[in-house]
Amino acid sequence: MRVSQLGEFGLISLVQEWTGSVASDPVAISPDTYRIDVDNGDDAAAATFLSSPVTELYTTDTMVEGIHFTSETTPWRDLGWKAIASNISDVAAMGGTPAFALVTLGLPADTLVDDIKELYAGMTEICREFGVRVIGGDMVRSPVGFITVALTGIASGRPMVRTAARPGHLVGVTGTVGGSAGGLRAMLREARDVGAAAGQLAIAHRRPRPHVAEGQILVANGIESAMDVSDGLADDLAKLCSASGVAAVVWADQVPADPALKSVFSEDWLDLALYGGEDYVLLFAAPPEVMSAVIDRLPGPAAIIGEITDGEAGAVTILDAEGNPRHRGGAGWDHFG
Amino acid sequence: MRVSQLGEFGLISLVQEWTGSVASDPVAISPDTYRIDVDNGDDAAAATFLSSPVTELYTTDTMVEGIHFTSETTPWRDLGWKAIASNISDVAAMGGTPAFALVTLGLPADTLVDDIKELYAGMTEICREFGVRVIGGDMVRSPVGFITVALTGIASGRPMVRTAARPGHLVGVTGTVGGSAGGLRAMLREARDVGAAAGQLAIAHRRPRPHVAEGQILVANGIESAMDVSDGLADDLAKLCSASGVAAVVWADQVPADPALKSVFSEDWLDLALYGGEDYVLLFAAPPEVMSAVIDRLPGPAAIIGEITDGEAGAVTILDAEGNPRHRGGAGWDHFG
Repeated sequence: MRVSQLGEFGLISLVQEWTGSVASDPVAISPDTYRIDVDNGDDAAAATFLSSPVTELYTTDTMVEGIHFTSETTPWRDLGWKAIASNISDVAAMGGTPAFALVTLGLPADTLVDDIKELYAGMTEICREFGVRVIGGDMVRSPVGFITVALTGIASGRPMVRTAARPGHLVGVTGTVGGSAGGLRAMLREARDVGAAAGQLAIAHRRPRPHVAEGQILVANGIESAMDVSDGLADDLAKLCSASGVAAVVWADQVPADPALKSVFSEDWLDLALYGGEDYVLLFAAPPEVMSAVIDRLPGPAAIIGEITDGEAGAVTILDAEGNPRHRGGAGWDHFG
Repeated sequence: MRVSQLGEFGLISLVQEWTGSVASDPVAISPDTYRIDVDNGDDAAAATFLSSPVTELYTTDTMVEGIHFTSETTPWRDLGWKAIASNISDVAAMGGTPAFALVTLGLPADTLVDDIKELYAGMTEICREFGVRVIGGDMVRSPVGFITVALTGIASGRPMVRTAARPGHLVGVTGTVGGSAGGLRAMLREARDVGAAAGQLAIAHRRPRPHVAEGQILVANGIESAMDVSDGLADDLAKLCSASGVAAVVWADQVPADPALKSVFSEDWLDLALYGGEDYVLLFAAPPEVMSAVIDRLPGPAAIIGEITDGEAGAVTILDAEGNPRHRGGAGWDHFG
């Protein structure tokens, strides 16, 4: 069987079978000296050395040229920003604070040094803003360009996980969705969409701002289940539901679409909002009383968009304003599809 | 200017200029809460949260298909082993113990799932043996296969660095060199070298054993300057010298070449030992009295092979048994050359 037939998520679940806990030899670290708070399979892993009061978070994310970005729609500087942003977002999804980054670049030999400089300028901008420090990395020759970032973070409170959503919980998002996908589409058909709204969307695509502050508000207010929206609101909610063994309903008219979306894409703005990807807002689930308290403490666009239900694990039903199931207009994103 | 003209090390030093310390915003981690013990540019970075007694190590290393490995000479299972081994070796070079790994795979869509299973089998073998736990990762589609591992570790004692070699220090290695390069070459011309010695070399290439125990012996015995041998003994010594602002002399007849090398490569065994790469032993420098004490505590093949001198930073002179400079038979390894 080939990877393309199995799909990304099939492969990930096989890998989780193949790995798992390990024994140790005399010079190895003793498993008695640390605790794995959150294992492989969530936005980030969390581990605590028992001699330390600090719980650390660990995540990694990769972008490959031609698959996750092209130089036409993502200039080098923005690529640097985004490569770090997607990792910060994973730490934000755990309610943590980002700390140290390792940056790996795979570069064709004819890459311009000025382009690499731009890439680092973008990384440095976002690192400065979010207090991340690049402490290492690797640079290798590769026929295709890629950038892999590994990021650590510090948990503030108990890390939020994908596995804690329960029937009866409400579902919230910390900000607007669809802007990044709309920006990408606006850039790809630039000639037709040159207005200010299209420009705003392009910025949403090229400079996403991870919701670190929002994640900390969530965890401080008792939220236990969250993840970030990187592959699209509906798909990511399906993953959260799958991890928790529950289903969900989304009220489409409650979804906070990026305000510029409707004016640029009057027909399919809702599909972009539901399935777009790279939004880097946080999706979370909580009992109604917890939800209503936290939603007031979050910045403006945060919204309650649905509820967790019994049902087939991972099944997400989108309901329109009349309560009728809404069919999907676009295709999901599978890294190996 | 293109990356190929600048070379790997030129690029790395530019990147060190472009990055560096960062400011922070209200939700960011405060720079007052941690200390960077070893920054970007060594085998691994080291950092300590001030509230914790644990100093952590962070490193990452990447292998790209067709550049760092081919399926002909490195079966998938061995590739899994080696991808983790090179990272463990970086932690060993700091005198640390490896802890947690993040594994990123870039895979062409037609990759066989059974091959990935083999890859993880090799990773699991070495993780089990060295007490490493895979706690996360990423899998992405890519036109070219690659594997990036990020590894954390725990420092035992003060991390050894590349920058602490001083004129008058002696230079030691913790084990034999050249076996991996010899194994690669033996496999590439298999028809001629099918003896047991060639088989031993192939194992050295496919299953290198990082020197974690040796690194801990070094740090426990007061060694302050070390690195691992991944790009070849002479080249890596040049890097250590460059980082310390010193030069070095190597006594070629003291270099512990892999015992199988001479029988398989009677002519250029010494070039393989000096310039081969992927040996994953440790190279270290120390004052003579420290060196003589530690060398007796290391396993058999460890040897004193030269000395640190004044001179052009990074200049390494190889002397033959008669004390005459020896000229290099092979080319060094530059990732962008």
